Amino acid sequence: MDKNYYPNSKTMQLGTSVSFSKTIRQIDIASFAKISGDNNPLHLNEDYAKTTRFKKPIAHGMLTASFISALIGTKFARLIYLSQNLKFIKPVYIGDTITATATVIAKKEGKEIFTLQTICTNQNNIIVIDGTAVVMIDS
Amino acid sequence: MDKNYYPNSKTMQLGTSVSFSKTIRQIDIASFAKISGDNNPLHLNEDYAKTTRFKKPIAHGMLTASFISALIGTKFARLIYLSQNLKFIKPVYIGDTITATATVIAKKEGKEIFTLQTICTNQNNIIVIDGTAVVMIDS
Repeated sequence: MDKNYYPNSKTMQLGTSVSFSKTIRQIDIASFAKISGDNNPLHLNEDYAKTTRFKKPIAHGMLTASFISALIGTKFARLIYLSQNLKFIKPVYIGDTITATATVIAKKEGKEIFTLQTICTNQNNIIVIDGTAVVMIDS
Repeated sequence: MDKNYYPNSKTMQLGTSVSFSKTIRQIDIASFAKISGDNNPLHLNEDYAKTTRFKKPIAHGMLTASFISALIGTKFARLIYLSQNLKFIKPVYIGDTITATATVIAKKEGKEIFTLQTICTNQNNIIVIDGTAVVMIDS
């Protein structure tokens, strides 16, 4: 595979924005539970979820946050993920369509290190995750 | 299912520490790529990974971070995940055994809101992820 394999990747420049959308299915939540080991019944069991403030099963926050990983891993070329801050603001339910958006908001003087604003919104344009990421170009 | 379903959960007190270990398999990385949409070849393609500083495929940082979700979702009762900061310090390779550990380090005065130190180490006791989480008890 080519060293520079990244079809359609964008260049890191201040203001550059990329996004990615995906609908959360029950099978995604079940798979994430299996991979992560997070089998909290709030995500998996309707009867249990009814006893919580959420009333219905919700997606793991880290599952929704994984869509930010998809942006960083596929929309720009050869980035190394240095850090990520996440605020889990609103619940995400099965069937919600999440759009993750990353926007370049700062560049470290003299280095190929960038800060991205990273947000996830649902189909009603409500922000469900807010945060920032720091990435470095692996040149 | 019982409202208080949480077998063997620990009480949130300053200094309380919980941990969870899991070995990263190639199939976990492939499943995470599918769920998240992060099909960056660094995680999936040996030939491509050879062209990078890592030389071999590495796990997605967010896959390793998902073990922190497992701690928060299964080791304490009825927590709501408010925020998470992550520093991706070292690469994680297929076959590495990761131990995620969360330790209660602060409590918000008058509220059931706690800060946890959250770290992930590999089988050589090297810290691969460092960070903090903030959680609230859903009472």
